[in-house]
Amino acid sequence: MADKSEKTKARLPRGFADRSAEDIRAVEKMMATIRSVYELYGFEPADQPLIEYTDALGKFLPDQDRPNEGVFSFQDDDDQWLSLRYDLTAPTARFVAENYERLPKPYRSYRSGWVFRNEKPGPGRFRQFMQFDADTIGTPGVGEENAGRRLTVLRAIDKLDKLGPEGVKLLLGPGRWDGGKEGEGDFAKGAGLNNGQAEAVLLATARNAQVGQDSMVSSNAIYQEGVGELATIEALVRAAGYGEDRIAMDRSVVRGLEYYTGPVFEAELLAEIPNEDGQIVRFGSVGGGGRYDGLVSRFRGEPVPATGFSIGVSRLMTALKNLGKLDASDVIAPVVVLVMDKDTDSLGRYQKMVASLRAAGIRSEMYLGGAGMKAQLKYADRRGCPVAIIQGGDERAKGELQIKDLIEGARMSAEITDNAEWRAVRPAQVTVAEGELVSEVRKILGAQAADRAKGGA
Amino acid sequence: MADKSEKTKARLPRGFADRSAEDIRAVEKMMATIRSVYELYGFEPADQPLIEYTDALGKFLPDQDRPNEGVFSFQDDDDQWLSLRYDLTAPTARFVAENYERLPKPYRSYRSGWVFRNEKPGPGRFRQFMQFDADTIGTPGVGEENAGRRLTVLRAIDKLDKLGPEGVKLLLGPGRWDGGKEGEGDFAKGAGLNNGQAEAVLLATARNAQVGQDSMVSSNAIYQEGVGELATIEALVRAAGYGEDRIAMDRSVVRGLEYYTGPVFEAELLAEIPNEDGQIVRFGSVGGGGRYDGLVSRFRGEPVPATGFSIGVSRLMTALKNLGKLDASDVIAPVVVLVMDKDTDSLGRYQKMVASLRAAGIRSEMYLGGAGMKAQLKYADRRGCPVAIIQGGDERAKGELQIKDLIEGARMSAEITDNAEWRAVRPAQVTVAEGELVSEVRKILGAQAADRAKGGA
Repeated sequence: MADKSEKTKARLPRGFADRSAEDIRAVEKMMATIRSVYELYGFEPADQPLIEYTDALGKFLPDQDRPNEGVFSFQDDDDQWLSLRYDLTAPTARFVAENYERLPKPYRSYRSGWVFRNEKPGPGRFRQFMQFDADTIGTPGVGEENAGRRLTVLRAIDKLDKLGPEGVKLLLGPGRWDGGKEGEGDFAKGAGLNNGQAEAVLLATARNAQVGQDSMVSSNAIYQEGVGELATIEALVRAAGYGEDRIAMDRSVVRGLEYYTGPVFEAELLAEIPNEDGQIVRFGSVGGGGRYDGLVSRFRGEPVPATGFSIGVSRLMTALKNLGKLDASDVIAPVVVLVMDKDTDSLGRYQKMVASLRAAGIRSEMYLGGAGMKAQLKYADRRGCPVAIIQGGDERAKGELQIKDLIEGARMSAEITDNAEWRAVRPAQVTVAEGELVSEVRKILGAQAADRAKGGA
Repeated sequence: MADKSEKTKARLPRGFADRSAEDIRAVEKMMATIRSVYELYGFEPADQPLIEYTDALGKFLPDQDRPNEGVFSFQDDDDQWLSLRYDLTAPTARFVAENYERLPKPYRSYRSGWVFRNEKPGPGRFRQFMQFDADTIGTPGVGEENAGRRLTVLRAIDKLDKLGPEGVKLLLGPGRWDGGKEGEGDFAKGAGLNNGQAEAVLLATARNAQVGQDSMVSSNAIYQEGVGELATIEALVRAAGYGEDRIAMDRSVVRGLEYYTGPVFEAELLAEIPNEDGQIVRFGSVGGGGRYDGLVSRFRGEPVPATGFSIGVSRLMTALKNLGKLDASDVIAPVVVLVMDKDTDSLGRYQKMVASLRAAGIRSEMYLGGAGMKAQLKYADRRGCPVAIIQGGDERAKGELQIKDLIEGARMSAEITDNAEWRAVRPAQVTVAEGELVSEVRKILGAQAADRAKGGA
């Protein structure tokens, strides 16, 4: 064994975290749900490695002023620079560009995994975290699909000052006579939006006015294109049945990564979420995304439009856990078979008990180690084991074993003042024939499950 | 868009791989099984970050002669060296050492994840691969638990030359009279092994003799300790019901990592496994492990015995896939709703169709993009979509839609020479009322599933 003086310090690097069994189970449960939704929506699973050539990520380093910072980088033995991915989008773009011809277009895929940021760590700010993305690549924006209509919408909005909301609404809808009444002047064909859609566009424009844009900005063509695109998105979203309570249009959202070339999205939790101290906090964003038409194109020298969405797994997990929506209490700690005698024959018998429990699907283990009975029961207690199996020489001679209900035992040793309660409790320990091991353990686990369902111990 | 001349090359770094949807699904299915077995055996999920301080891994670099090779390393902004983990055991040791007091002992945990080797890549030899481990930490070896008995066993084996197998068998079992007959000389107490166990030890010793050890080696104390420990393990394993066909003792196994301090294990697939070309190959090892008593101790300066097992996920997946044991064909590609009209109203209607299919749990998507009908059907074909939904202006006017059975359609367009077959096929396209969308799609998917179950199209 190493000398105390020369021992290595066991410590996590700054900004990294070990995950608890509870968190791992919660994340797995949550990711299974996300996966099933992505699948339901037609996305295919995909997976890229965690390491890419730095130049494949390079143009999109989080901080361009410090090109060597933001990502973890190292040189390969052929002197090429490699980096740990800082998100899942850049590797996706590399993969799509490399395999463009053979992929169906649009290519719709989802992927999850760890990403890394070489940034200053802080409380709740980690340098390794998990994302869960879905991307659609090869599909242009709403605007491109409706280029003609979009122009009509934009021209209509542009006339708001001159015609007022009612006039613009006609131009967004069926069309309008220049003179203001049927038959007066020329007829201007409308954009063909229905009443609700036209009102949505007007509403968006009105909100825009409230933001206080001056007329120089609001008459800018790119600005108008953005307004029109948002209005079209809103119309489609409303048509699909999502109200303001589910999807809201908000022009104040800014997202950090500079590869976005169109609308950006953000998923915000509005639920009142208690933090670890029980205080209600506004949790905020748990995911986001947007259109990134340049990210694949830069590999191919031709336009490859794309849009994607990323869920911040750890943040969402924390929120759902605090909301009590990720209960992992259906996982029961193992039944433990205590080791009373350590000779090979006895160990063999204990192993056989464990094997019969496992064969019946009951999570179980033989205690491993040289500790005495007290320490073994302490181990069972620390792990929250529901049941302990005990067979010493006396029981063995009679072909029997003892089964301890550790949950009931804990309840009984807590203060019970009521006589009726005393009568209602199960016996905390029973002695049964060896052959009844599985059926008796199953009975006790069933009773414990019923207690939990009742909100009991 | 970027100029062709300045575009970045999209390429995977050497030794890394993108995974296909099929492989991802196969691995997920397999890992779910491994996870449920580890859980059944009482292990808890655990997870450590992918990056550790190099000195925490340092003593156990795969190649000590080249301390900077074997692992991917980089310097943190405080000049400390970080490395990507090269296995899951070293981070586990760091975690246990750092949290030793609060963990139940033995600490039994499982974890899966990517590990990295900075080695020369080759065919089938990757620099990023996945492992799935289970470890028990804080439990000494079999030998320590049975120190007294082990000594008796070792002394008995040591007398093989002098007493022959029958004499040694008595010493391994009930004991032996020095004179060779009952009552002659002193009685030497035996190790108390039963007949089968004693024979297992003798067998192990005999195999040892075949390996051709000279007497100087075989009388070496450490060697004898190893022989005795293997014999005890074999006895326990046989008592637990594992025959030679499941667990064989083999002294020729050598495992690469130098942290093993006791017995090592290897899981070998004996099934005849066809490779991609259909040739039967001996697949070999898909996992391994052993005792590593020094790995945690070096952080703590006190003995912390440990033993663990690691499954090579990619290798096992390849083997199981080639054996046809990881069929992912129960995942059906999405039903696709074609976009016949691109106005906002029509898009809204198509989205509603998709929403109703999804609400019924049917995987589906609206085609995203500006392509014509032919290109949309080509997309559906490339993705293997089972059904396409079509509603143009004419169907819309009548409140109807067309449902295309793409599987049956493909079958019909293939050569069918038999008249009976023609009659048996389902219609490849039906026109139904809008309200019958979900029930009709469900009917077609059901018929396709029945066909697959029959081994049909």
